[in-house]
Amino acid sequence: MQNNESFCNFAIYKVGYINYHRNKLTKEKNYNMNTFFNARDLGDITAALAEAQEVKRDRFAYQHLGKNKTLLMVFFNNSLRTRLSTQKAAMNLGMNVIVLDVNAGAWKLETERGVIMDGDKSEHLLEAIPVMGSFCDLIGIRSFAGLTDREYDYAETIVGQFVKYSGRPVFAMETATVHPLQAFADLITIEEHKRTDRVKAVLTWAPHCRALPQAVPNSFAEWMQAAPDVDLVITHPEGYELDPKFTCGATIEYDQKKAFEGADFIYAKNWSCPGVTRPEAYGQILDDYHKWSHWTVDAEHMSWTNDAAFMHCLPVRRGLIVTDDVIESPRSLVIPEAANREISAEVVIKRMLESL
Amino acid sequence: MQNNESFCNFAIYKVGYINYHRNKLTKEKNYNMNTFFNARDLGDITAALAEAQEVKRDRFAYQHLGKNKTLLMVFFNNSLRTRLSTQKAAMNLGMNVIVLDVNAGAWKLETERGVIMDGDKSEHLLEAIPVMGSFCDLIGIRSFAGLTDREYDYAETIVGQFVKYSGRPVFAMETATVHPLQAFADLITIEEHKRTDRVKAVLTWAPHCRALPQAVPNSFAEWMQAAPDVDLVITHPEGYELDPKFTCGATIEYDQKKAFEGADFIYAKNWSCPGVTRPEAYGQILDDYHKWSHWTVDAEHMSWTNDAAFMHCLPVRRGLIVTDDVIESPRSLVIPEAANREISAEVVIKRMLESL
Amino acid sequence: MQNNESFCNFAIYKVGYINYHRNKLTKEKNYNMNTFFNARDLGDITAALAEAQEVKRDRFAYQHLGKNKTLLMVFFNNSLRTRLSTQKAAMNLGMNVIVLDVNAGAWKLETERGVIMDGDKSEHLLEAIPVMGSFCDLIGIRSFAGLTDREYDYAETIVGQFVKYSGRPVFAMETATVHPLQAFADLITIEEHKRTDRVKAVLTWAPHCRALPQAVPNSFAEWMQAAPDVDLVITHPEGYELDPKFTCGATIEYDQKKAFEGADFIYAKNWSCPGVTRPEAYGQILDDYHKWSHWTVDAEHMSWTNDAAFMHCLPVRRGLIVTDDVIESPRSLVIPEAANREISAEVVIKRMLESL
Repeated sequence: MQNNESFCNFAIYKVGYINYHRNKLTKEKNYNMNTFFNARDLGDITAALAEAQEVKRDRFAYQHLGKNKTLLMVFFNNSLRTRLSTQKAAMNLGMNVIVLDVNAGAWKLETERGVIMDGDKSEHLLEAIPVMGSFCDLIGIRSFAGLTDREYDYAETIVGQFVKYSGRPVFAMETATVHPLQAFADLITIEEHKRTDRVKAVLTWAPHCRALPQAVPNSFAEWMQAAPDVDLVITHPEGYELDPKFTCGATIEYDQKKAFEGADFIYAKNWSCPGVTRPEAYGQILDDYHKWSHWTVDAEHMSWTNDAAFMHCLPVRRGLIVTDDVIESPRSLVIPEAANREISAEVVIKRMLESL
Repeated sequence: MQNNESFCNFAIYKVGYINYHRNKLTKEKNYNMNTFFNARDLGDITAALAEAQEVKRDRFAYQHLGKNKTLLMVFFNNSLRTRLSTQKAAMNLGMNVIVLDVNAGAWKLETERGVIMDGDKSEHLLEAIPVMGSFCDLIGIRSFAGLTDREYDYAETIVGQFVKYSGRPVFAMETATVHPLQAFADLITIEEHKRTDRVKAVLTWAPHCRALPQAVPNSFAEWMQAAPDVDLVITHPEGYELDPKFTCGATIEYDQKKAFEGADFIYAKNWSCPGVTRPEAYGQILDDYHKWSHWTVDAEHMSWTNDAAFMHCLPVRRGLIVTDDVIESPRSLVIPEAANREISAEVVIKRMLESL
Repeated sequence: MQNNESFCNFAIYKVGYINYHRNKLTKEKNYNMNTFFNARDLGDITAALAEAQEVKRDRFAYQHLGKNKTLLMVFFNNSLRTRLSTQKAAMNLGMNVIVLDVNAGAWKLETERGVIMDGDKSEHLLEAIPVMGSFCDLIGIRSFAGLTDREYDYAETIVGQFVKYSGRPVFAMETATVHPLQAFADLITIEEHKRTDRVKAVLTWAPHCRALPQAVPNSFAEWMQAAPDVDLVITHPEGYELDPKFTCGATIEYDQKKAFEGADFIYAKNWSCPGVTRPEAYGQILDDYHKWSHWTVDAEHMSWTNDAAFMHCLPVRRGLIVTDDVIESPRSLVIPEAANREISAEVVIKRMLESL
């Protein structure tokens, strides 16, 4: 009775509050979007992109959907862009918003059963999560990878428990392995700025002084592969291979210069070792970052491309990921890309509201 | 001039901003609910329970009451359920909500007069509280017991000062000695789940590894005694006697098994020594909690009852207060009980708005 | 390319998101209030005071202005009055409000160009600020003086960058050198309580145990000089001379008793050395505060005046700045003065909304 399956069989949840809502959610709707983690959750990507432009033309046109509906935003980690853009999107839709900052140190949740909770964990997730679900209609979760246990991170344990026990639709505001609101905003931005029907996008690793999660590159790769008109090339030093379930057969080119040739969009990002080809190094920086300073995207790098636009999810460390002149150039899209976070969030929340 | 009485005679408050509002509040209204700390503040409990069901049927029916009204929620201590449910209730009523997290360490208030404030306290409560009152219509306060000075805690010093100097209706979001929004939600839950007209409710102490306040058991006892159809039995080891002003003559049974016999509802909760029979031990754990592990509510305990429902205010430490199988059983009401916190808060705030 | 001028020439900002909004803001409006830092930003002070009374009579009359508009309040420092009053004012106007508490320790912004950001600063202001601007319509900033580098503080570096790069109207919620929402509220309060057409207001330094910024006295001096019917006298020990760009030729009287004679309003405040006459002591307390305890405003001090009203911006340390009996007397205006912070903020935000 301590395995995952047993969670689903708790009588309290089967007969109680949660399943009432689960059943409600299975009713037929235009969409039935109960979770948002992957590109496939949006269904037809072309239709979703068209909807994004519709929302952008009048972001206040759907306020009837959010009336008397409450979004709960749960942050286990800090946030600037996601906090502001998601809150703004929900308010555009007429929702009430409650922001809950969980100080990981102050409020630890027990996740095991059969435990005597006499340590530092004062509440069990099996109570905390359904309670949170009681006071809202939608839940957004930010919960970063710990980067020490690949299996735990890639199982999306925390977020999965919110899906199972909250009784509410749940969307990712960056989880251990995905950041779909960012990737959707990236795709909207590429569609707005592309100069040809078909484009070449390059996801390039760049050096960084700290070990960073793989959520952004994972989602970027997945979404570019899901887009109908993007050819994706991924370039990084050996050992940084992303999980194939996200790259979906994309071309990997270890020679950064070759990768950049003919590119229409350069998407720079650092990530720590995903543990695919080097499982023992999961979550680590493989070499001192000074060794890879020639991978920092500068004007020479951009000269190899087809006058590519420069993209980054922000925050970005200048001098490591990209030089001042590239990020400040007319071909830099970092600000409109961030601004589109409001649009991607609004489409997702709108669809979840329509699915209630 | 340093006694409590002198506070009422400050000329600034007699002629000034506060009394203007005090006078306004004495106008005749359907209710005149200016404070919410005790069961008697609700008046007729049966009527209040009926109103709770009315609110629950359509929690958005009273939004005209909250239009252009602002609730200020002041937290001197952490909160999950209370923060979410009270905010939700106020938004249901169409109010604006401002949440103020007072880090007790960072913002210390001077409470004495005649002091040269050259220490770590940068503001006097006699300024801070009327200022907070200036920018809102209702105030909710969370301020836990310090558990070191019984007289100070049971005098409800902090909250009393908000009542005196804020010029606004004030309700408890758990104070040093009471948690009436919880007790009201508990009573709503009992009414919804009772199988007979008259029920036996048992408040049982259970072991815990930390010293906890008495606010929840105090209010539960008080509210059960105020309910027209509940017979209350309280059980705990000797030394944990609650203050008689809350238990109001309830039966105390030191034999937990005898207490459980015939019970329809088991309400488990730990509390530290209330200092009634053992004043010298106020706020302390009387014995190592391992000694009382046979008081943890498990399946055998529940077998002594009349197929009782299990209740707890949450957060709960499993393995100390209750076992996994009991809290997860079909007879556990912890989740609907928490969900009813939105309803109890909405009734209270609704009545306060009607009393403005 | 590392001087200030170069900031304006970043191609990304010239062709991009921000200038679109800059251009919008130059359209003809009733007002064109894009910043609020100084008295002159309000234009005709008499008209602004009349508007304050209009707003005070019905603070909910302008909700059409704020519909679907979002105020972002960015706090680099703690706040009680400003946080509550500004939020309340924006909600009065029908706006959505997002509050961003920037823990200076946790979120350090790089401000220089040409730097390799491999230290503790994870984002450059040139990205962070336009991103914040993307998700709101107005920005309020609180950012106190560091009190170590006069040139840096008096250049208003942080706030200036928000003006330059956010693409949004920006108002001060107390910056390094000014606190205009306070000074405007002070002036509203003086107008409401004056007994003669022309009044004498005295800004008096008072002792304090910590080094405090000059923002409040700077703005008070500036606004009193801008008011049509106030004669300002400033009194303080030698060495505390305020910057002439704020005092604008006001009388300075080092003899506190002479200054108080005939005063209608006493405005007490401590400030650290402004570094005007003693540049080497900028931001410091010049003498042990015990030496100046005879400057604490007590009943004897008030007896020198024309039955003056007592004012202070709060928070105030009793026993240092003012005695209990003076701040609690019928002539103390500290509470209505604080309450007027809602009114001053509402006038400013209303005008900024009208200028969008």
